[in-house]
Amino acid sequence: MVKQERAVRTRRAVLEAAAHVIGIRGYQAATMAEIIQRAGVTKGAVYFHFRSKDALARAVIREQTEPFVPPVSDSRLQDAIDFTHQVALALRSDPLLQAGTRIAVETTFSEEPLVPYQAWTDIITAMFADARDKGELLPAVVPERAAEFFVAAYMGVQLFSRAATNRADLPERVTALWRHTLPGLAAPGALGHLDPQGRSARIAV
Amino acid sequence: MVKQERAVRTRRAVLEAAAHVIGIRGYQAATMAEIIQRAGVTKGAVYFHFRSKDALARAVIREQTEPFVPPVSDSRLQDAIDFTHQVALALRSDPLLQAGTRIAVETTFSEEPLVPYQAWTDIITAMFADARDKGELLPAVVPERAAEFFVAAYMGVQLFSRAATNRADLPERVTALWRHTLPGLAAPGALGHLDPQGRSARIAV
Repeated sequence: MVKQERAVRTRRAVLEAAAHVIGIRGYQAATMAEIIQRAGVTKGAVYFHFRSKDALARAVIREQTEPFVPPVSDSRLQDAIDFTHQVALALRSDPLLQAGTRIAVETTFSEEPLVPYQAWTDIITAMFADARDKGELLPAVVPERAAEFFVAAYMGVQLFSRAATNRADLPERVTALWRHTLPGLAAPGALGHLDPQGRSARIAV
Repeated sequence: MVKQERAVRTRRAVLEAAAHVIGIRGYQAATMAEIIQRAGVTKGAVYFHFRSKDALARAVIREQTEPFVPPVSDSRLQDAIDFTHQVALALRSDPLLQAGTRIAVETTFSEEPLVPYQAWTDIITAMFADARDKGELLPAVVPERAAEFFVAAYMGVQLFSRAATNRADLPERVTALWRHTLPGLAAPGALGHLDPQGRSARIAV
């Protein structure tokens, strides 16, 4: 039991060290040597959990979405707005999210992209599908297509914010993203009730 | 005169070689040695025109938009749609555009991002401003803000298409981008006349 707990802690330390190094150096430039050094564990322990940098990248991609629990309220479209603002705030400091972005953009140009966006698209698709069932969407909107578009647009907005202000203006840019896309997503009856700034902007974070 | 022509041709050969190498290797991984070899000119000739890889990257960024002449018709919003489809088609084969994208995403994470998006944002801003003057925009839309949002979203859509299909589905994704954003941009009277697929989809390319 104690042994297992230690293994879980070691694995987490390695994953966080990898995220930290990838977030600073980039995915291609990050080395296993630096990740091992940063994790402060033995080389054997690292390779016990992750056989390669590729395996580490896949774990970062898979686990980056885990801490985020999408809100559930009467308006699933507002929940989606709030969720994307929650992720935007976390992107400023969460090493796994920051590493996930770098892995995403770098592997985009490789022979086998890791498709790191799938988990995000699945979360948004589920929320848009619920919104459709509640009559919040325009009839022509297909939840999965709309989610694919939205997640791609969010990635672009996020990269621009990183380049322009090191993500300081990301909440405003996410608000602008919703302002520009809600009229093409939301049914007229729902549109007036939605706050593109997110409800978290009105309550303590 | 002949000497000057040769200089222009040499400069262009170096720029295209740089774009080719950066497009394949990425900006960080591209070396001046490989660019010089690919250009088939002397090292001295390369450094006469471009003092560094950074100078080459800036020239790629500056000159990538030059071949694109935005269309001018009665509908400036349709012109913007057509223009983005024109760029989408070119992105599949134009080395300068492909290199521009790689420089953009890689320098996003550097201390001094090259802000390679500014030229694109300026072009779209001008078209949206004309559209506003013609009454094609919703009153709340600010051309510069809308252009900033649109260019960021376009970058994300482009990256996703590169990862998913090596840009084979980029035209469909650009159409989806417009379908989702036009209701938040266009005045109701203009919306019905706009074709998110672009007019070039209906005429020979």
